[in-house]
Amino acid sequence: MSQFTPQDEQFMQRAIELAKQGRFTTTPNPSVGCVLVKHGEIVGEGFHYKAGEPHAEVMALGAAGEQAKGATAYVTLEPCSHYGRTPPCALGLINAGVTKVIAAMRDPNPEVAGRGLKMLYDAGVESAVGLLAEKAEGLNKGFLKRMRTGLPFVQLKLAMSLDGRTAMENGESQWITGCQARADVQVGRAQASAILSTGVTVEMDNPSLTVRWNELPEEIKREYPAENLRQPVRVILDFQHRVQPQHKLFETNSPVWLVSDRARDLTDFPDFCEEIIVEITDNPTTLFNVMRILGQRQINTVWGEAGATLAGALIEENLVDELIVYIAPKLLGDKARGLCRLPNVTELKDAPKWALQSAVKIGADLKTVYIREDND
Amino acid sequence: MSQFTPQDEQFMQRAIELAKQGRFTTTPNPSVGCVLVKHGEIVGEGFHYKAGEPHAEVMALGAAGEQAKGATAYVTLEPCSHYGRTPPCALGLINAGVTKVIAAMRDPNPEVAGRGLKMLYDAGVESAVGLLAEKAEGLNKGFLKRMRTGLPFVQLKLAMSLDGRTAMENGESQWITGCQARADVQVGRAQASAILSTGVTVEMDNPSLTVRWNELPEEIKREYPAENLRQPVRVILDFQHRVQPQHKLFETNSPVWLVSDRARDLTDFPDFCEEIIVEITDNPTTLFNVMRILGQRQINTVWGEAGATLAGALIEENLVDELIVYIAPKLLGDKARGLCRLPNVTELKDAPKWALQSAVKIGADLKTVYIREDND
Repeated sequence: MSQFTPQDEQFMQRAIELAKQGRFTTTPNPSVGCVLVKHGEIVGEGFHYKAGEPHAEVMALGAAGEQAKGATAYVTLEPCSHYGRTPPCALGLINAGVTKVIAAMRDPNPEVAGRGLKMLYDAGVESAVGLLAEKAEGLNKGFLKRMRTGLPFVQLKLAMSLDGRTAMENGESQWITGCQARADVQVGRAQASAILSTGVTVEMDNPSLTVRWNELPEEIKREYPAENLRQPVRVILDFQHRVQPQHKLFETNSPVWLVSDRARDLTDFPDFCEEIIVEITDNPTTLFNVMRILGQRQINTVWGEAGATLAGALIEENLVDELIVYIAPKLLGDKARGLCRLPNVTELKDAPKWALQSAVKIGADLKTVYIREDND
Repeated sequence: MSQFTPQDEQFMQRAIELAKQGRFTTTPNPSVGCVLVKHGEIVGEGFHYKAGEPHAEVMALGAAGEQAKGATAYVTLEPCSHYGRTPPCALGLINAGVTKVIAAMRDPNPEVAGRGLKMLYDAGVESAVGLLAEKAEGLNKGFLKRMRTGLPFVQLKLAMSLDGRTAMENGESQWITGCQARADVQVGRAQASAILSTGVTVEMDNPSLTVRWNELPEEIKREYPAENLRQPVRVILDFQHRVQPQHKLFETNSPVWLVSDRARDLTDFPDFCEEIIVEITDNPTTLFNVMRILGQRQINTVWGEAGATLAGALIEENLVDELIVYIAPKLLGDKARGLCRLPNVTELKDAPKWALQSAVKIGADLKTVYIREDND
């Protein structure tokens, strides 16, 4: 039998809803929600919104005031135990007189990793872990993967026709999917720590690779005001130095990281543009090393928007955690351009396998989400 | 306000469920269900099972016996008015003393087309039409299209990887989709009047193109016993006379129609094999004429299983009513074989457009159903 009651579950569910409110802004921190309950009633709520701003527990304690004394705290992640930009939340809960803490999951952050719970235990505060743990995992796929492996969580976004084509033979591709699917892509970008693309794409399409607030769906706009908009870092794989200062990338004052194996003259590039130098290697591969560097730079999630070559390489090198494929209800025929180049796949048994997570209609298109099947 | 009550709807829904029991067997007839209701209670039920066997109304009247007097009949299609293999059902209802008939829809069959309702009216039997008409349409998409246009309803089945590929570069294709999706294909075949394929496919894959009862899902097997199995006619487009008597097609004693523009020597072919000779024309196209001939031969629905060339031709010539695409969660890469050849589509605006009807997971695969968007 579970140690948790249906009422516990209800409060934790509320804490998860609160945590979601930070999903566009908390990176590199995790999204966390907290609910304080006394005599079966919520006396304080909070969520983390942005690095440097109060943690969920602090916000909930502030809302509860004196009522926090004797309350139970429901937190979607183990309270922190370290002095970062804010003091440890475990200590805050103890000092406020909270008598019980229920956390959805442990924090794998090596700076916490059980120490928050230990701090509570040492202070005589009852604690329990594991309520709605799976949902809590889903809140922070990027942060959790980075804490556990040092690598970001990689989502590869693809948009194609029903027959798996991304452009006509002549390159024409605007637009294969409809405006609602494209608005959904903006939401995906908005939740990512970084957007990954290539110098070839920049040279061909000259995209800005920003989140365009105006294009977000109305319900997201209501929740996420324009003045709070956070732009993901734009990471451009550009070993051939194709990116030039006049590209649209540089019209938005927000970080661009150009990845190459050799330095270039950055004199004419704006200050928000910097270089990442990475050696070209086979084992581990260059792309793996790029991901490792992004992890070191606190990138939780990478949103890949790539042509067939980078998409195929990410897939073949097993670097994609989630495939997000928008399928337009059109047929372009077999001369049109393919979705991904997989030079090493010549037999059916070697074809990368995925597991379908969801398929929903967005406008006239179908949005499918696949996760990697562990067949490696 | 509707002239029908919720109770009426409930009885018609029951008639529709009954009608579905004939979906594997009634071709070239429509699937029809009938419920007789007296004092709010069902006194007789029936459905049409097979051409030459009793119509739904006759079966329901038989079940009701004397109770039919004064009853209301709920029928999914206007009762017939002509002497076919059985006498007119409208007359049967009148003679049994039924006092009211509610039909889901009119029968577009030119031999009926309102005459059944007129027969009832002339005999003083009250009647009404249009209850759950859309659902009733769905029971007989093939029959209704043939009655209205002379052409069969064409379903094109495609099975592909997530990146729209049907085989590796070397032709390897067994199996891209899983066994549950393949069982679902058997259900699709089993409901079709004819299966359409090509001599090239027969030469390459040597398929039997039959319904394999053993491979049907268990719930279908329970409903559709092996001894009642009807094999769809196999229609093979074979202008190059590739089909030979030793092909697996001929291991099952069931009609095979070989389509070509010139006769061949059929001496070594079994009796159940016959030829359809069609001229090669541009306007209307040869394929259109083949469909017209199949309509004349009372084929209600065609289930197409084709390679990229026939699939593309059917699509470009606007002959496909429903696209059924099984999407396997695999990526084969852009050297693998494409889904359909569309030589006339060179600009995005010319790409054939479809409307997504449904997307459901079957085993690990995704089954999507699209209907033609009227953009011609």
